[in-house]
Amino acid sequence: MADHTTRTAYTVESLLAVTVDVFNERGYDGTSMEDLSRAAGISKSSIYHHVRGKEELLRLAVGRALDGLFAILAEPEAVAGPAVERLEHVVRRTAEVLLDELPYVTLLLRVRGNTATEQWALERRRDFDHQVAELLRAAVADGALRADVEPRLATRLLFGMINSIVEWYRPGLKAADGVADAVVHLAFDGLRAR
Amino acid sequence: MADHTTRTAYTVESLLAVTVDVFNERGYDGTSMEDLSRAAGISKSSIYHHVRGKEELLRLAVGRALDGLFAILAEPEAVAGPAVERLEHVVRRTAEVLLDELPYVTLLLRVRGNTATEQWALERRRDFDHQVAELLRAAVADGALRADVEPRLATRLLFGMINSIVEWYRPGLKAADGVADAVVHLAFDGLRAR
Repeated sequence: MADHTTRTAYTVESLLAVTVDVFNERGYDGTSMEDLSRAAGISKSSIYHHVRGKEELLRLAVGRALDGLFAILAEPEAVAGPAVERLEHVVRRTAEVLLDELPYVTLLLRVRGNTATEQWALERRRDFDHQVAELLRAAVADGALRADVEPRLATRLLFGMINSIVEWYRPGLKAADGVADAVVHLAFDGLRAR
Repeated sequence: MADHTTRTAYTVESLLAVTVDVFNERGYDGTSMEDLSRAAGISKSSIYHHVRGKEELLRLAVGRALDGLFAILAEPEAVAGPAVERLEHVVRRTAEVLLDELPYVTLLLRVRGNTATEQWALERRRDFDHQVAELLRAAVADGALRADVEPRLATRLLFGMINSIVEWYRPGLKAADGVADAVVHLAFDGLRAR
């Protein structure tokens, strides 16, 4: 029994790794169960043994990205201390989770559609952004962050910068060293030498 | 004759305005001449009177965005003066051109494909990014910008922030006031209060 469970878990995991790549390449709407079966090298009925269908695979894949992101907000450094330091931690860790879970976060950022799962993913993403915006607002209220950039606009530009990493980052790319550090430097202190 | 020319020019312009919206909504690949004819409310043969087809419309639309961006590099403030001030001007103006030509720049940023026109657009975009990266490198060499963020990485994050504006900006949105100012503040001085 234990053995069977382990094997099943492994299969769902590896199926998900294939699925997320196919979704990112062809788009969720443009992917059929046939495409997934071909890419995974297993029959459609084997896939249906594990999941109810394409939408459940999407839920599992974007769920993995969302779990990684929300876990940041529960980390001790995100929970206690001055708002500006909590925000700095969250910004750095968000970039790190994006890099660690690149295909899953890429998929999450491309979700646009109208299925219940896509709506749920968009809602959870907005919730994450909202919590970061609140932290930013608190840091402005503390006087630690400049007050002349509207907090919602600042949050949008901040996530714009972080999320754009999925457009060009490839593991092993030389220019990719120290991405999370660069994000934190740029976001908090800007490019200007001091 | 003058009258005819004026009318023709007007028609191409308004056809382009419709086309860019359809391309952004359905994707270039997903758009047929039939779709364009329906959206513009004119026959396909009327469209063919002005352009050879879909690819020429794409070239005109992304060309408009590219012309706007490259014109920045020729502005006096981008040509003379310390590199850091030229870069600051280019960053601000890039954000402004993006806002002014929102649908055209949005289309440019979504170009991915394999037609000659798409390849040309990608090449021109890379050329623009490259020229900005050179400016950034010069400002680092002058000691005006921090040397601990690799210039290519800094350029990518900078454009990531600017280009992300197309994802959420809608004319009239309250949080959109002062977008170009916010970009310049964030990019050069960061969020931290001083």
